[in-house]
Amino acid sequence: MATEPYRQTASEVLARINSGDLTVEQYAQSLLARIKARDAVVKAWAYLDPARVIEEAKRLDQVPIDERGPLHGVAIAVKDVIYTKDMPTQFNSPAYEGHGPTVDAASIMILRQAGALIFGKTTTTEFAATTQGPITTNPHDSSRTPGGSSSGSGAAVGDFQAPIGLGTQTGGSTIRPGSFNGIYAFKPTWNSISREGQKIYSLILDTLGLYTRSVDDLELLADVFKLEDDMAPDRDFKVMGSKFAVCKTMVWPQVGPGTAAAMEKAAELLRAHGAEVDEIGFPEDLNDLPRWHSTVLNSDGRVAFLPDYCASKGKISKQLIDQVENRGRISRAAQLEAFDKIATARPVVDEMVGKYAAVLVPSVPDEAPEGIDSTGSAAFNGIWTALHNPVINIPGFHGGNNMPIGISLVAPRYYDRHLLAVGRRVGEIFEQEGGWKPKN
Amino acid sequence: MATEPYRQTASEVLARINSGDLTVEQYAQSLLARIKARDAVVKAWAYLDPARVIEEAKRLDQVPIDERGPLHGVAIAVKDVIYTKDMPTQFNSPAYEGHGPTVDAASIMILRQAGALIFGKTTTTEFAATTQGPITTNPHDSSRTPGGSSSGSGAAVGDFQAPIGLGTQTGGSTIRPGSFNGIYAFKPTWNSISREGQKIYSLILDTLGLYTRSVDDLELLADVFKLEDDMAPDRDFKVMGSKFAVCKTMVWPQVGPGTAAAMEKAAELLRAHGAEVDEIGFPEDLNDLPRWHSTVLNSDGRVAFLPDYCASKGKISKQLIDQVENRGRISRAAQLEAFDKIATARPVVDEMVGKYAAVLVPSVPDEAPEGIDSTGSAAFNGIWTALHNPVINIPGFHGGNNMPIGISLVAPRYYDRHLLAVGRRVGEIFEQEGGWKPKN
Repeated sequence: MATEPYRQTASEVLARINSGDLTVEQYAQSLLARIKARDAVVKAWAYLDPARVIEEAKRLDQVPIDERGPLHGVAIAVKDVIYTKDMPTQFNSPAYEGHGPTVDAASIMILRQAGALIFGKTTTTEFAATTQGPITTNPHDSSRTPGGSSSGSGAAVGDFQAPIGLGTQTGGSTIRPGSFNGIYAFKPTWNSISREGQKIYSLILDTLGLYTRSVDDLELLADVFKLEDDMAPDRDFKVMGSKFAVCKTMVWPQVGPGTAAAMEKAAELLRAHGAEVDEIGFPEDLNDLPRWHSTVLNSDGRVAFLPDYCASKGKISKQLIDQVENRGRISRAAQLEAFDKIATARPVVDEMVGKYAAVLVPSVPDEAPEGIDSTGSAAFNGIWTALHNPVINIPGFHGGNNMPIGISLVAPRYYDRHLLAVGRRVGEIFEQEGGWKPKN
Repeated sequence: MATEPYRQTASEVLARINSGDLTVEQYAQSLLARIKARDAVVKAWAYLDPARVIEEAKRLDQVPIDERGPLHGVAIAVKDVIYTKDMPTQFNSPAYEGHGPTVDAASIMILRQAGALIFGKTTTTEFAATTQGPITTNPHDSSRTPGGSSSGSGAAVGDFQAPIGLGTQTGGSTIRPGSFNGIYAFKPTWNSISREGQKIYSLILDTLGLYTRSVDDLELLADVFKLEDDMAPDRDFKVMGSKFAVCKTMVWPQVGPGTAAAMEKAAELLRAHGAEVDEIGFPEDLNDLPRWHSTVLNSDGRVAFLPDYCASKGKISKQLIDQVENRGRISRAAQLEAFDKIATARPVVDEMVGKYAAVLVPSVPDEAPEGIDSTGSAAFNGIWTALHNPVINIPGFHGGNNMPIGISLVAPRYYDRHLLAVGRRVGEIFEQEGGWKPKN
């Protein structure tokens, strides 16, 4: 018996649809059945209209074969801070209940043109800007958070409710849920995909993020979004003979036992497969990067949430009100110092990271914590968001409660395709030998 | 007889509305009559529905006095790359004919909350990204361009069709029309006003711009948009005893006779009023700034216009197609070098500029050129856009054809309110003694 379509990756499903083995409607029905079975527990969706999904699937089935795009029929779960012209976009904010401007974000325009089936909207923290979790639970243990702010997209992809999810990252909003849900998460180089139509928190930090359950699927998306390095990546990249580094940054002391063990095992596995793995520190004069990130973030929040503050102060959370009112009393001088110092750090870190096939850093302190009120710590992600480097979360490890833990691989800016090529081989090893196996 | 309301600045009109001397409806009627008389020549509007304007004016007249905002009834002309929930937003692009998502840009949300009368949409070059002018003419000579890309907002404010206009600037799209139309134009520090809901060309360059016919009106807007320096500006700033500098940057050789004379006269006037005026150069190691600006712009266009390229390549101009296809063959390395070098330059230039009350630079090479096909050169603006500094165009001078020429004053980043305080006094001098008097 063929695998249930909902279990398959986008690449696998595409092959079946293109061979005539599966219609888009059948595929959509499979996903909808999975969601129906699981939604009461996982609650990943902020908006999902099965009738509309089927209608759209039928329309795609009518598209002549020679007019089909590279993502024909592939279902996409869209974080609810990204505009979709045919669905509401509500930002998990009471100020935007029922809000649904008839416009697609840039990313959605590109995906639709590629034939994707825009499936529904997934939960987020308020404006993707707070750490107060939505109602979504971790698909591997419903007593735990799926992470955030891209909670719903991470959980939906982790739970086989969609093969691909769109997230965003300003601190750790893509990579952290990637680790917590045991899936691939890719934060490409800043501004390598247009963020038009995606709620702004910080212009210099916000990045569209991608969730999949395979590197093949990330490659598909990278093609569609035209991510291009200067040099074509080595598609035959081999771990054997390559050089990696484990980087212990200034936030390393926040690592928990699960991630510490995973990092150690990751290095061992790479060595066992013939790679050299250095251990490197981080330039000491950049030790304030987390503070600079936070300063920029809060200063940018002061600007980003002013419109909502003016229009409906009573409906936005205190954290955002405090940013608008600059309760942290961040001076312009401090803001500029942080902005400028991060900028100076970028080429320095590129050069450091560029000496290796990729640099390994934690994705999260540990497994997904218990409870869904807080989406967990982004301590390990913020500096890479600020630095604009591409980051991929590779799943495969687990913590003390058999919850997934992923490891981040980092490359220099605009080495996105290189990072995917490396991530593919590293992923094969980590997934096979890292020790985590999902229960359901 | 009282001055016709349409002739007045926003501050003057506000005083009349607040004193009960004028209703918002009467004010709107005055503006609409002016537009009716002039629109066949100036053609500043991409969308204007007089009935809707009057309806909205009547609604504002019903707002109880104690619930009125600081811009109660003030008419705003909005560049047609900025979303307005009750009007189309068409980007001067055939791909967006009739496009009208029901959402307000962040700037519009803030202005509406302040009680402004969102009047209509003004013409722009395609996506505010090309130099191919729209049908709009210069209100002071209809055989000439009003500049661009904020063509309609510049012309509308210059022609007394609206007291305030919103523009945007990625190269010189706000300051250049300011000069060509003989009005105040203010480009605040980058990202000091949210650009949410404003078409993206380049994240690191795009800035909302403001047009008025007085510094009072810019101060009003700066209050509403909560532009705040670290230090409260000296509201009693005096030119007497202050220190200015004329800065001849690497683009100085592109200056024409009109602007050269205006710059000389500006320095003379300041000296005559008791200021010291230095002449300074620009750091030589930053001579490539125009090239870096162009490199970033074109690389960012590659990302920004990909969605439209995918969705409707046949409907976007060749210039944008070339950017998406990277016809300039800009490498990622070159792109990052430009991005990083501009970043390094910002604090250096801040320090240089911060030694003076303000630094004077040309706004444009000369008067508005003949013809409306091209919106003119942005040579003098791009570097300041890249550097993120606040810039104000002060009108007052003229060229060989009695067309207006303005001078740019520049301050360090987040010295926006300081720059307005200085601009107020400098503006009094330039307007009175610069020699330009509008004909109509």
